[in-house]
Amino acid sequence: MTIIQLIVDAHGCEGPLNDAATLLARMEAAARAAGAQTVGQAQARYVPHGVTAIVFLAESHILISTWPEYRLALVDILLCNPRMDPEGVWDRLARTLRPAGEVRIRRSERQVGATPE
Amino acid sequence: MTIIQLIVDAHGCEGPLNDAATLLARMEAAARAAGAQTVGQAQARYVPHGVTAIVFLAESHILISTWPEYRLALVDILLCNPRMDPEGVWDRLARTLRPAGEVRIRRSERQVGATPE
Repeated sequence: MTIIQLIVDAHGCEGPLNDAATLLARMEAAARAAGAQTVGQAQARYVPHGVTAIVFLAESHILISTWPEYRLALVDILLCNPRMDPEGVWDRLARTLRPAGEVRIRRSERQVGATPE
Repeated sequence: MTIIQLIVDAHGCEGPLNDAATLLARMEAAARAAGAQTVGQAQARYVPHGVTAIVFLAESHILISTWPEYRLALVDILLCNPRMDPEGVWDRLARTLRPAGEVRIRRSERQVGATPE
């Protein structure tokens, strides 16, 4: 089974890049909207600023790392249920991160299941 | 500044895919060997098996998700210090995961710093 890891570099973000609680809440909400189930969350806060926030899902994870000094957010969205839509998750997260600069999105295929041929 | 996210799908793993504590210890050791500093860690355990383990680094993160039923580990290594070597981290993790099947490695460029031109 091929699933997609959505990898997003979002520049010029005007959202709350240093507010891990808000980011985690919005990540959970975006996961829920995609039909995914949150099973845990964690964060690291950096000095003087910046966070890495992860929501563990029954269907893998969503991770955001921020560099407020650059107004930058790096986002990874991995949903191991191929019926779930990682782009939809990103669209919701974008409403929170509010990137005003370049948004670079890549889709990285990952193989889950038996060893590929 | 361009940094590399190393994305590894490791099949046929013979290592302790269901042992989050061991995985986290080896991830920390691999980070240390690369010159990175661990600032936190977290995990989610799945029923009936499988884990997602993350080590938060001063220089970003290392994440492993496992599917023991498929002997599969998905690994992400992101080091925001371009002098640090994500391949070296993977080499160390491979000694623990011991993939006997296909290992698919991709290098995803990510932009950290001012908005790229």
